[in-house]
Order: sequence, then C-alpha cells, then structure tokens
Amino acid sequence: MNRRELLQALAVSGGIAPALTVSSARAASTPEINERTVFLMGDGVPRSPAQWTALLTRALPKDTRVSDSYLRGGAVTELERRFASLLGKEEALFLPTGTLANQLAVRVLCGEHRRALVQHESHLYRDESDAAQLLSGINLVPLAPGRPGPSPDEVAAAVDASLQPPFPVIVGAISLESPVRRAGGALLDIESVRAISTFARSKSIRLHLDGARLLLASARPGFDVRAYSALFDTVYVSLYKYLDAPFGAVLAGDQETIGRVRALRHVFGGGLAQAWPAAVPALHALDGFQERFRAAMVAAEQLFSALERAGGFKLIRVEQGTHVFTLEISPEQQSGLVARLSKAGVLMLEPKQNQTEISINETLLRRDTAYLVRAFLGA
Amino acid sequence: MNRRELLQALAVSGGIAPALTVSSARAASTPEINERTVFLMGDGVPRSPAQWTALLTRALPKDTRVSDSYLRGGAVTELERRFASLLGKEEALFLPTGTLANQLAVRVLCGEHRRALVQHESHLYRDESDAAQLLSGINLVPLAPGRPGPSPDEVAAAVDASLQPPFPVIVGAISLESPVRRAGGALLDIESVRAISTFARSKSIRLHLDGARLLLASARPGFDVRAYSALFDTVYVSLYKYLDAPFGAVLAGDQETIGRVRALRHVFGGGLAQAWPAAVPALHALDGFQERFRAAMVAAEQLFSALERAGGFKLIRVEQGTHVFTLEISPEQQSGLVARLSKAGVLMLEPKQNQTEISINETLLRRDTAYLVRAFLGA
Amino acid sequence: MNRRELLQALAVSGGIAPALTVSSARAASTPEINERTVFLMGDGVPRSPAQWTALLTRALPKDTRVSDSYLRGGAVTELERRFASLLGKEEALFLPTGTLANQLAVRVLCGEHRRALVQHESHLYRDESDAAQLLSGINLVPLAPGRPGPSPDEVAAAVDASLQPPFPVIVGAISLESPVRRAGGALLDIESVRAISTFARSKSIRLHLDGARLLLASARPGFDVRAYSALFDTVYVSLYKYLDAPFGAVLAGDQETIGRVRALRHVFGGGLAQAWPAAVPALHALDGFQERFRAAMVAAEQLFSALERAGGFKLIRVEQGTHVFTLEISPEQQSGLVARLSKAGVLMLEPKQNQTEISINETLLRRDTAYLVRAFLGA
Amino acid sequence: MNRRELLQALAVSGGIAPALTVSSARAASTPEINERTVFLMGDGVPRSPAQWTALLTRALPKDTRVSDSYLRGGAVTELERRFASLLGKEEALFLPTGTLANQLAVRVLCGEHRRALVQHESHLYRDESDAAQLLSGINLVPLAPGRPGPSPDEVAAAVDASLQPPFPVIVGAISLESPVRRAGGALLDIESVRAISTFARSKSIRLHLDGARLLLASARPGFDVRAYSALFDTVYVSLYKYLDAPFGAVLAGDQETIGRVRALRHVFGGGLAQAWPAAVPALHALDGFQERFRAAMVAAEQLFSALERAGGFKLIRVEQGTHVFTLEISPEQQSGLVARLSKAGVLMLEPKQNQTEISINETLLRRDTAYLVRAFLGA
Repeated sequence: MNRRELLQALAVSGGIAPALTVSSARAASTPEINERTVFLMGDGVPRSPAQWTALLTRALPKDTRVSDSYLRGGAVTELERRFASLLGKEEALFLPTGTLANQLAVRVLCGEHRRALVQHESHLYRDESDAAQLLSGINLVPLAPGRPGPSPDEVAAAVDASLQPPFPVIVGAISLESPVRRAGGALLDIESVRAISTFARSKSIRLHLDGARLLLASARPGFDVRAYSALFDTVYVSLYKYLDAPFGAVLAGDQETIGRVRALRHVFGGGLAQAWPAAVPALHALDGFQERFRAAMVAAEQLFSALERAGGFKLIRVEQGTHVFTLEISPEQQSGLVARLSKAGVLMLEPKQNQTEISINETLLRRDTAYLVRAFLGA
Repeated sequence: MNRRELLQALAVSGGIAPALTVSSARAASTPEINERTVFLMGDGVPRSPAQWTALLTRALPKDTRVSDSYLRGGAVTELERRFASLLGKEEALFLPTGTLANQLAVRVLCGEHRRALVQHESHLYRDESDAAQLLSGINLVPLAPGRPGPSPDEVAAAVDASLQPPFPVIVGAISLESPVRRAGGALLDIESVRAISTFARSKSIRLHLDGARLLLASARPGFDVRAYSALFDTVYVSLYKYLDAPFGAVLAGDQETIGRVRALRHVFGGGLAQAWPAAVPALHALDGFQERFRAAMVAAEQLFSALERAGGFKLIRVEQGTHVFTLEISPEQQSGLVARLSKAGVLMLEPKQNQTEISINETLLRRDTAYLVRAFLGA
Repeated sequence: MNRRELLQALAVSGGIAPALTVSSARAASTPEINERTVFLMGDGVPRSPAQWTALLTRALPKDTRVSDSYLRGGAVTELERRFASLLGKEEALFLPTGTLANQLAVRVLCGEHRRALVQHESHLYRDESDAAQLLSGINLVPLAPGRPGPSPDEVAAAVDASLQPPFPVIVGAISLESPVRRAGGALLDIESVRAISTFARSKSIRLHLDGARLLLASARPGFDVRAYSALFDTVYVSLYKYLDAPFGAVLAGDQETIGRVRALRHVFGGGLAQAWPAAVPALHALDGFQERFRAAMVAAEQLFSALERAGGFKLIRVEQGTHVFTLEISPEQQSGLVARLSKAGVLMLEPKQNQTEISINETLLRRDTAYLVRAFLGA
Repeated sequence: MNRRELLQALAVSGGIAPALTVSSARAASTPEINERTVFLMGDGVPRSPAQWTALLTRALPKDTRVSDSYLRGGAVTELERRFASLLGKEEALFLPTGTLANQLAVRVLCGEHRRALVQHESHLYRDESDAAQLLSGINLVPLAPGRPGPSPDEVAAAVDASLQPPFPVIVGAISLESPVRRAGGALLDIESVRAISTFARSKSIRLHLDGARLLLASARPGFDVRAYSALFDTVYVSLYKYLDAPFGAVLAGDQETIGRVRALRHVFGGGLAQAWPAAVPALHALDGFQERFRAAMVAAEQLFSALERAGGFKLIRVEQGTHVFTLEISPEQQSGLVARLSKAGVLMLEPKQNQTEISINETLLRRDTAYLVRAFLGA
C-alpha cells in the first residue's frame, strides 16, 4: 500500500482505518514515511513488515516460556491473564478475530434465548455478514439506526415488545459497541450504560461489550476501564487496531462463560496452532499504552488550541468522542496544507468541503507541538 | 516446553506431534537442543520463538509488497497462487486452521445435501468437536472404523444405503484424509482413491481431501501431488506442521467453490486482519521442500538399513506409509540407547515393549548417516 | 369457549380471530348460538366439534380414494392439485401450519443467501418466535414498521444497503404478507407488488407471498387470485381460517421449489400420517367460496349503507381493506346495542370509545339485510 | 389402497405397517373387507375414512369442552393429562409427528452438549432424514448396527470414547427406541435399560425413549408402562399406529423439559390450529386399550398353539418380542392358504420361502380361535 492507497483506504473507512496498525506496510517504507512520521489518521501505529519483525525481535522475552500449543501456555496465556486483570474479569481468552469474539460472546450469553438487541450501526449488525444469524440462529434486533446507541428507555421498550403475546420471545442478550466506530468513535456514556446494565440484570438478560477500541477511551476524563467493563458480562478488545498484533482479539468474562467460548473457539475453527507472534507484541504495547495514549491526546489538544488561536481552523468534536475529530479549515489555510504537512512528515486526509477527519494515535508524540503547529501554519 | 514435556507431548499424540514445528519452543533452546539437533519425531522442524523470528527476518522479501489487508494482497495472495499451482486447482485460499478448512470445504461441497461420508479415524470425525454437525448441520457418516479408509465398495454401499426408502438421503460429499494421522501416516492408495473419485463423480457427489500432511507423501515412489489432488474437488494442506508457519491452512479448488468458502471464512470469524507472518515462512519453506524431504527419506532408509544390518533393530513399515515408522529394538540394543542418542543430539521417543515410533523430517539432514549410525550403535 | 370467552379472545386478537373457524367450539352450542347465528367477527364460520364432524360426514366423497399415506394420495393430493390450479402454480403442497409454510418457503427461496426482507408487522417477523432465524439461520430484515408494507423504493433501498462494502450481503428472498392481519386486513396494492416483483426478478431475488387470507381479497374490485399470485415465486394460503379445516396450509410454487419444501417438511417433523380430515372439508369449502364470500361482502355493504342512512353509524374503511371494518357508533345508538344484537343472534364486539371492529364472513348470509338492520336499530 | 396395494405396502414395510391404522382406507371398504375382517398385519385397526368419521362421531364427548385453540384446552389437554398419568411423568405434550417428538426431545435433553448416542437401527437414525443433525446440529452417534440396541457396556464405552483427548465431547443424551420396529418389534429388556439409565444418570446424560409402540409391550409378562418409563427422562408414544388418531404423538417428561419442547413446537411449525380430531379418538382408544391388546395376544397364543399342534406350522418368536411373529408354514399347508383365509375374512401376507410375518392387533378379537383355526386349516 503506497501513500495514495493508504489515504484512499482511510477515506473509504471514514477515517478510522480498520487495519491500519500494520497493514499500511510499504506506506511506512516509502521515502516520505519513516519512524518519525505522524499519522493524523488510524487507530494505532502503522508498521511495515520489516518494522514489525524488528519490533517482535525486540519484544521477545528472553527468559520465560513464550510459545503456546494451540493457544495454551506462553505469551498467549500471559496476555489472557493481563487482560483479565485489566478488565476486572475472572478470565480472558484469545480469539483470532473480533468477529468471532462478538459472535461467541453473544451466542453463549444468549444460551437458549437466541434473540439479542444490538445497535443498528454496530460492527456486529453491519459488518459480520449475518454470521450470528447464520451460524448461531440468533435474531439480532437492531436499535437506534443512525445513532450511536439506544437509550435505556429504548432498550426497555424493545424487551417489552419482545415479550408481547401471543408469542413472547425472551431476549437473551444485549450487545453494545463502545466506542462506536460508525459514530465517529463516540463512547456510550457510562450513565446510560449503567442504566441498561441495571435493567438487563433485573431481567436476567446478559450484556456484551464490543470494546474493540475500548482503550482509546482512556483519555476521557474519569474514564476507568474496569469500572466501565464491570457493567458488562463479557468484554471484547481488539489486539491489532492499536496494540501492534497482526491480528487477534481478547474476550473477557466469568469463568463459566469463557469456558464455553473456549470450547466453541475450536468448533468455529479458531484454534490456531500458535499465536504467540500476536501475543508478544500486544503484551509489549500494553505496557504503558494508556499513558502514551493520554499523552498523545494532551498533545492533540495543545495542537488544536494552537490552530484555533491561529485562525482558519475550527475543531468539531464528536459528542462523547474519543480519538476522532473533524477539523474545519478555511479555504485560505487549506491552500497547500496537505502537501506542506506531508513534506514535514505529517500525514493528513485531504479536506472535503472544508472539513477533514483526524484520528489521534501514538504517532503524534513523534513530534512536539511547536513542530506540528509550524507544519500546519507553514511558518 | 522442555525436553521431558516435548517427549510427553509426542507420546500423547502418538508420535506425530501436531504442532511440533514451532511449539517445542524452549526445547530447542535448552543446552542439549540446538540447530543441529536431529528430531526422530514430529512432522517438521521445531523452532523456538527466537529461531522462528530470525527465520522470519531472513525470509522477508525486500522488494515486493508483503503485508495483506484482511488476507488480501501481499504474501498471503502469493501463497494462495503458489498452492493453486502446486495442487493444480483454479484457486487457493488461506484459512487460519485446518479444522475450518475441512468444515468449510465439506459444507460448500455438500450444498443442500448435508450428509457426508468420512473415515471414522479422520481428523474431521474425531478431532473437530462435532463442528460440522453443530454449525453446518451435516451428518458425518463414519466409515471403516479402525482402518485407514473405506474401500470403493464400502463407499458405494454407504451411498446405496443412504438412498434406501422410505426416506432416501442424498450424500452431498465424501471427505478423505490422506495421509491418515491416526493410521500411522498411511496414504490412501491412488487406485482406491481413483475408484472412489470416479464413483463419486458418476453420482454428483463431491470429494474433499484432508491433505494436511499431503506433501509428506512426496517421497513415495510415483507420488505426484497434482495427479493425486486432481481426483478431488477440494484439497486442504496444513501450513504449520512442516512448512514453518505458526498457524494456517490452505484450501484449493475451483473458483466458485473457493469463492463461497471465502465468504464463509468471514462468517466463521476466520478473517484475520493480517496473516503475512504465516505466509512468508510458508512460502520460504515451500521452496525446495519436496527435494529436502525426499533427501531426508533417502537418508532415513540408509540409516534403517545400517541399523538392521548391525543387528538388534528391525524396521516395521506402515502399509502405504509415508514418514512414520516403528523401530523394534532388542533389549540389548535398548540399553542406554535414548540417553546416548540424546547426548549425540538425536532425540528419539523412549521404546515401549521393545518398540518406538520414529517420524522422519528435515532435521535428519543435519547429520550424516555415519554419525547417526554411530550414535545409535554407540561405537 | 363460551360466548364471553369468545368475545375476549376476539378482543385480544384485535378482531381477527386466528382460529375462530372451529375453535369457538362450545360457543356455537350455547343456547344463543346456533346455525343461524351471524358472527360480525372472525375470518370464517365458527363450528363446534359436533357441527364440524357432521360437516365432515357430509363432505366425505363416496366413490373416490380419500385417505392419504403420509400426505400422499387421496384428498390431500386432490387439494394440492386444486390449489396449484387456483393459484396458477406448477405444484402445491399441504403443510400442517402456516408458520411452517412461511419458513420453508423463505428458506428454500433464499438458498445460500440467507437474508430476507420482510414487513415488520408480518406474521413471519412477529408471530413465529424467531423460527426462521433459529432453525434456518436467516436474517429477517424488518421493513416499514407500523405500516402494512414497504414501498418499492424502500425495498430497493434495503437491497442496496445490504450490498454495501466492506461486507456486502446478497438478499436471497423477500416475503410479503397480504392481506396484512396486523394492518386491519389491508391488501398490498397490486401496483406496488408488481414493482417489487419486477425489481426482485431483475436482481434474482425470490419472492414469497404469505397469503394466509388471500381469498378474503376476492371481493375487491378487479382482484384476481392468479394474477396476484403470478407476481410471487411461492404463495401460502391458510386452510383453517376460513376454509373449514381444523388446521393446515398450502404452499404453491414451481416444481423444484416445492420438491425441496416437500423434503424439508419431513425434516421439520411436518409429515403427518394422514391429513385427509383437513383436506376433505377444505375441498368442500373451496367449492364456491369466492362466490359466497363476495355475496357476504355485498350484503355487508348494504347493511353498512342502511346503518349510515339511519344515522348514528359511520363506517371507517381500511385503506386497501378486505373484510375488516371499523364501525363508529354514536353513544345513543350504542345504548343496549350489543345485547339487542345478541338476542337477535348477531354477535358483535362491544364498542370501545365509540368504535368497534367488524369482520365479514359467510355467516352474514344467514340473515337478510332487513333482519340485520332491524336488529341493529331495534325497530 | 386396495387389498393388493395394502399387502404390498405391508411387504415393503417389513410387516409393521407404519400407518396402517387408518391409511388402509378403501381396503376396508372393498367387498371382502369389513368390520369383522381380521388383519394379521399392522399395529392397529385399519379404518376407512367413513368408518373413522363414524368412530369420531361416536367418540365425541357431549358435555365437556372438546375443541382446543392452538393445542391448548379441550380434548388435547385431556389427552396430555391422561398420558402424563399413564407414563408417570409431570407433563405430556401433543406433537403432530413422532419425528418431531424425537428431535425436540433429544434437542432439549442435549442442551448445550449436542452429541447423542442412538441405535443404528432406530427411527431417529434411519428414518428422519438427518433432521436432528440438520436443524439441531446434533451428532447422532450410531451404536449396535444390525442389532436391536446396545448393551450397557457398549453405551459406557461410547461415552468413554467421546471423552478422550485431545478434544473430549460431552454426550448430552441417549435415545433408545423400544420396541424396535426394525428389529421385529423387540423390546429392549428392562435390565439392560435400567443399567443404561443408572449409568446415564451417574454421568448427567439424559435419556429419551422412542416408545412409539410402547403400549404394544403391554402383553409381555411383568411389563409395566410406568416402571419402564421411569427409567427415561422423556417418553414419546405414537397416537396413530394403534390408537385411532389420524396423526399425532405425545411426549412426556418433567415440567421444565416439556415447557421447552412446547416453545420449540411452535418454532418448528408444529403448532396446529386444532388437534381435537386426533385427541378425541385417541382418548377413546386408550380406554381399555391394554386389556383389549392383552386379550388379542392371549387369543394369538391360542391360535399359534392350535396351529402347531395341527402340524405344518411352526412359530418363530422374536427375542424379547412384542406383537410380531414369524410363522413357518410347510409347503403342504401353504397350498391355497392365503386365498382360503381371505375368503374367511382373515388377511395374511403371502409366505416367502415358507415364512410369513404376522402382527397381532385388536382385530384378532373379531373372530374366536375356533373360527380362525378352521380358516387356517380349511377344515
């Protein structure tokens, strides 16, 4: 993928590159892209295969067992323990994809009651090719089309509608994605989630969090990963979007639930022979991730302030947003901007109708604010 | 996994270590195990994470695109093309596991007719936790319990029984594993397979080959991978048993079948974000694999002959065998044998009742025959 | 079920009693209910078991084979031929329930593409306990909540949305219920249906009609059962709502589709040992049904006109309605009305907020208009 | 079906006519067949539609509620209570077919553990078109091919094999058919069944009885329906084979299990609008059934003794048999026998290789032994 392809991919995906972390591959090896390049796009740090292999070499622990046998032992088990602790759950389990994590979580949480409420704009409803319906026979009832998520009242109303005669159907599970990729990375606010969680527990309905990008909420004031996760029975976090793994996901929950998911992982063909090459870099990235990401977000705020003060730039925030922003740029400031930034090693999407979408990730820390402001303003 | 654990794992798995290639991890880094160690066990070359990472670094192509995006492009696509050509099929597809390859192949080949004939001793019937039944609703009818595979007559009889009134059921597919892991690596002989294939085609029944270890038949006289594969509609080959990938499988077949499998790969949660770290070493291992493996088998025959000539050793061959042998050892020769071999860097399973199982792989080429004979005979 | 229970059942079901035909059982044997009772409710003629048994005795053909063996032969086969001809399809098939007819039709029409568009207010989406999702893995996408059905544009938009990247899903089938029970028996107008049918065929999407109450559209001007059915690949018609069978449904379509449904009928446990007791009365009722029903509708119009002329009554029609009406009644006319009607052998639901729902069926012909008008007006 | 067709059908079905009760239809109305005809074939009393309708008219209760609404209330509920009591279970449920009863029982009993042990020769394994596999994802593991059923040791061995590493699978349920239609109606002896039941309970494996013909074991010395049923979690009994219903089955078990089956009955499309026409004759037949059947079996023994004493006849019994026998007839006695019997109103299958199969049912009581002996011997 060269730079042009990279930008196109980002444009298509609405600014949140699904697999940017590593897939930008050759992008990072083209002349203008190197280890100091700042990506104002994507969830994590893009790396070429050579860069990633070098990272793996560095990250490889020397004196402990690393390899796993069919996902048991070594770095995979260590990663599972680390996530169980991070998310405050009894157990965590490595899975090859988030698509599988979502389906298995919802399948097991539903048990015999295979109706689940989901967001219309969620990955589970829109990007998994009807997997949960086809393989697990679950009716995914879509709520809140066009919005990040349903209100607690909408959830209660949907459960109530489901229980109407003459053929009442018990809702087995609710799945919430948060932050919501198709809603500019908005985090579902904890008060709504708490109300939904309380309601769900009162009805014996189990609750899943598609928290693929959950750690990207770390910079929100007051956000606490464990407190947020505690409202859910299961939590899925992605390993490849911003944690340097080439693939993979982790699902956490109570022992019995995760035990069932483990058995189904094999049934669904997800029992990789070895996954330590995914677990090792993810463990490495987790060390200090929240601190680095918070620092990047602080730097972003400084940059945004400086740009707004300079004039011609206006930041538009997503309500309950995390790391995605819209930058409105006056025609004057736009002139030559993207090319100038590129020359300075700062990659930004071409504005359309005076707006461009910016995603913050750790690469922002590769340059100080003064450098970035100069690159923007051309001073 | 230390040496003791490694040997235990091999004992449990009946001598054919499922994931020995890399999972023996620290085994290879313990003092007595190094890059000249000969493993008389396992399908491929065991490597520690450090050794594997070094291999990946070496194998990484410099001047072509390597990375894939959700399994499209780069080394993954190149690997698929390479296997399509090797197996003589229109298309090949990367899949994260052989379990998934088997299920998706049989599911798509069955189409609406979800009854499939399988070997009772196959991986599909015994090691996939009823996956094809649970997720694809397929009745796997087990044939030839306790034997490598059914005769053409048994296949025809099973199809005929299936069509009996009052409720005839159409058999949609037949799956054959060959070589058969639970039958000492025996290859189903091509004449039987051809007869089954001819019969199946006459009945519009489609045929799948679980050829996880297919390339290990390369040393059999007259064996031709393409000719053997041509008898089947789909062929699965494993990437991690003897081709240096940490995980992965390839399924090959006609364009329409593979197209359907590709769509289902996502549905089953097998759409890894990136798999070039599996494809790169597999491509590297494929270069010259059949030549190296044949050379190892020639060396094995020389070793066996020398041992039999020396007395106290008797080789027992599997009928239609590939790379697995039983070595009968007299009590006199057994005395101190395993320890002596180990000291010489040759790892062999402890004999039980005067017999031990030996698997041949490329590591046999790390020492010449004279060295190995001396290590065995203690001269 | 006594009269009070009967009225309650009707109130619950929104005026269209699902199984009123025969289930009103003892209702018809209570003193005030007899063979001249007029039911201003329900789709067909309620009969007690004794009345139904007498009907069966009368309807039993003398000189042809009647009985079937597992739904083959006799009256069942004759009924299937009759419906194939009536609906203009190659074949028709008896099924024990409409729920099964809908699921099997949509399952077979979907084939490999298990996403189907349905009305949110349809029986398939709301009254079948997620059967199609659970057993056939179909994602039923609900359209037009709160309305009888989607416009052709809405259908096209839903198909288009389904095909969006990154994970396009092919819509396999569309199911339309018409007349729509949850929309006051409204018939989807033929122009819209034709546009949807043309669009579906252009996209190779197959179309199912849940025409449980299709024959109740017979009185609409210009309505032609065959012409309407011709727009669909499969058509289901209920046997027990207004055709005197105790249970049962018929599904019609082309030979291949119906052949597949026949095989699945057994798989779903719908292969009754004998169903001639359902087929015989249905065949009997079919003779002249459309004529009798049209006559009842003409009589209804005369009654409605007379009541409106008399004052205090106002008829509210369902748009595209069939046999269900709302009668608005002034407080003066309401006084003692239901009791007076009951005394005259005319059963009507108690008005609520000055309105009551009236369903027309053949029992209206049991009394002439003058009698009915007198009963209403108390003259 | 005329007499020739009837005999052919019986020949095909191995002497146990699956649907003879009523399906012989016109058979009973041909000149030589009437209400005194003795059928030495079939499980129950064949009746023409006219005869059956007359029976229904007689059996219809006068002063209780008879009709049901979607299988709730009336004769259906009464029948369910009657069977719950007869079989000693908390609840019983009407189902349209035995195929559905078997699948839903095994599905619910399996719960999450969808592997079930079954007899190879059972209806569930051989006559249900892979329904349990296709719709419920259950792996039915066939035991004891060619024999009535597995020994307790075989069951234990199969459970043990299922639990072997590396991928142990928990067996969720065991289904036993008894009497076994494909084994000449042999009853699985209660000691074996008790041992299997004790073993199953010790392993938390649930046990289903396909007792379609269970009441036909009533004449075996010491047989007690409740005691036999007590060994199972669920018991299915057919309504149409010998209990005069045109179709239908009853499944009995504990409240929770039957509650789940009830919900699935609708999902599988088995929620008939009304089934009192099946329940009423079944309730009628149940009154005194065991007494009448025992009397028929006593009469059969008298007949067999008399024939053996007369010479040229030899009775061959099925081990643990119920109502099916093989009669060996000398060439001399065969001469003109079937025609002579037919003239006397006694229908018997044409002998092949000096043997014919005889099934005993209530029609044997239509003539006394002396009459039957004369008819056989032509005296």
